[in-house]
Amino acid sequence: MSHVSDAPVTLSVELGERRYPIHIGPALLGDPGWLEPYLAGRQVMIVTNETVAPLYLERVKQGLSSELDVRELVLPDGEHTKTLESVATIWDALLAAGFNRRCTLVALGGGVIGDMVGFAAACYQRGVAFVQVPTTLLSQVDSSVGGKTGVNHPRGKNMIGAFWQPRAVLIDTQTLATLPPRELSAGLAEVIKYGLIRDADFLAWLEAQMTELRNLDDAALREAIYRSCALKAAVVAEDETEQGVRALLNLGHTFGHAIEAHQGYGAWLHGEAVGTGMLMAAELSRRLGWLDEVQVARVRAIVDAAGLPRAAPANMSAADFLEVMRLDKKNVDSRLRLILLRALGDACVHDETPADELTALLEAFPRA
Amino acid sequence: MSHVSDAPVTLSVELGERRYPIHIGPALLGDPGWLEPYLAGRQVMIVTNETVAPLYLERVKQGLSSELDVRELVLPDGEHTKTLESVATIWDALLAAGFNRRCTLVALGGGVIGDMVGFAAACYQRGVAFVQVPTTLLSQVDSSVGGKTGVNHPRGKNMIGAFWQPRAVLIDTQTLATLPPRELSAGLAEVIKYGLIRDADFLAWLEAQMTELRNLDDAALREAIYRSCALKAAVVAEDETEQGVRALLNLGHTFGHAIEAHQGYGAWLHGEAVGTGMLMAAELSRRLGWLDEVQVARVRAIVDAAGLPRAAPANMSAADFLEVMRLDKKNVDSRLRLILLRALGDACVHDETPADELTALLEAFPRA
Repeated sequence: MSHVSDAPVTLSVELGERRYPIHIGPALLGDPGWLEPYLAGRQVMIVTNETVAPLYLERVKQGLSSELDVRELVLPDGEHTKTLESVATIWDALLAAGFNRRCTLVALGGGVIGDMVGFAAACYQRGVAFVQVPTTLLSQVDSSVGGKTGVNHPRGKNMIGAFWQPRAVLIDTQTLATLPPRELSAGLAEVIKYGLIRDADFLAWLEAQMTELRNLDDAALREAIYRSCALKAAVVAEDETEQGVRALLNLGHTFGHAIEAHQGYGAWLHGEAVGTGMLMAAELSRRLGWLDEVQVARVRAIVDAAGLPRAAPANMSAADFLEVMRLDKKNVDSRLRLILLRALGDACVHDETPADELTALLEAFPRA
Repeated sequence: MSHVSDAPVTLSVELGERRYPIHIGPALLGDPGWLEPYLAGRQVMIVTNETVAPLYLERVKQGLSSELDVRELVLPDGEHTKTLESVATIWDALLAAGFNRRCTLVALGGGVIGDMVGFAAACYQRGVAFVQVPTTLLSQVDSSVGGKTGVNHPRGKNMIGAFWQPRAVLIDTQTLATLPPRELSAGLAEVIKYGLIRDADFLAWLEAQMTELRNLDDAALREAIYRSCALKAAVVAEDETEQGVRALLNLGHTFGHAIEAHQGYGAWLHGEAVGTGMLMAAELSRRLGWLDEVQVARVRAIVDAAGLPRAAPANMSAADFLEVMRLDKKNVDSRLRLILLRALGDACVHDETPADELTALLEAFPRA
């Protein structure tokens, strides 16, 4: 049925007994045999949202054997739904179905669905299997890989959650055809992030390919997803629970989370906030003497080329940023910990940023 | 200050990097230096309940350095409070205090507090440190050791939770002086359980020492707690996430959970339900030809001597039992899995109990 060039490619997240594959290909969804190797038993619950269900739910179900006990749960869409209450809805549905410890949850959707379903799996009967089927670029390159799961709290993003690894990540690149352009840009923020923190060659490739990516060129997308997942898988294998190097994946996230929390979850897309946040981190790195203006201009240009905002919200003061950033999970005791850039392609954890430099950056950074 | 004979004894739960000690002694609480080695940083939140707080909260606080940022949270008491909503209260308090990933939760109380605080720690910012300070016999010999955490759901006990190990378990046997006799009996059910599943010598020792134990003889209590914790620690080290031998610790629990769920959480104490449940498991083992009537009579006698109920609730039919048991976490797909006794001191996992034998047992077993 498929051309050789369309054959899925596979990566592996090397976590010993909890090792799992990432399959990337067009038209994976619903291929017979695509999902069943990763089921723990015959009880399967597909959890998705109101946007994704009409597009892909039937296709997923068609790929599953009629021997299985398959249930579905369709949640509302949006970052504002990423709450403990939504996860409790999943638990209620699992218990109402009489599902036991050998059940498998399938997360069909973007990062919100993946994070919530993963957390539901982590805590249902103290842990059951789950499979990630990400349908947005952001979740395909970032949130579906690595086992970070959880929900937001009014006082902070992802404050409640668990590390819980999926059995597999199944990425069907054709699902990007139905992704709104704004969501595509948000996903590109995380792709750019990998270049900035670890891989200057990839960053240069992205600068050259940005038009193709935004035009949904399948070969370019698959290359970008593959390289992003490979970088993420390597970092996660090295540091699953973020004791060290994994923190680098949070480049732009401390500023970005502050924007999301202050604006109300969902007003800015996560990737949009990360895009602006990465630019803020680059500007702060310049203030500390690590980057020059030419390098910051490259960051500004690629953020812009990806269709991401280059300015922080007009209604957000320096004090607003600092208030939310104080609660960031990366902080140790009362010290603010930031991810900054020593060079393009070389990020570091920094917890000695002088308060006046940070305040100066927050005050001087452009507002929309 | 203390006599040699009062020196705490220490066991270790051998879980590699997550290895932790169990200290058992009189007057541990509030000893300078008793808790601080197990704190992850300077942020400490002591979580307890309205019954335990007036008795022991000040003593715990007095043992902590004034350099620490110590907060307290007092929850209502009782099994009916073991809910997701109560755990959310803990998360709210941690976030309101601005506590980060280096904070430590201290669970001061019985099994309900320990299970909820452990679960709160497991999921706060994807996992923070916690210390168990159990103040009931049941939590000292069972629930504080081994990392099972969680809350109840209207459809089943402990349905939502995580495996999350404490940094230490600190058992002050003097706290048993304030324990109501009914709670002491409930704790003895779990002590008897260890004898029944793994250690016939310990069972015989308990038969001989039951009067001393119920009279709060300190030497007898410490011996019973030490031997119980040693058995539990060995089982947990062998099988942390209950893939095999750990399931044996659930002797009496499948029947017991059904009683608790049907009667409404808190009507029967957990240990009371386990006591009756163990007797039901012994009777079923006799029906399968594994125990004789003399052995079952020994189980009945020690359950009775411990002050535990020997009859199931009058308003609970065989069908009521089966309805709740169908959802038990130990079941695999639709097969009911029970822990039964091949002999006194030798338990096994059994998933081939004929439905008619189980129904006959449930119908014939005495009702109160």
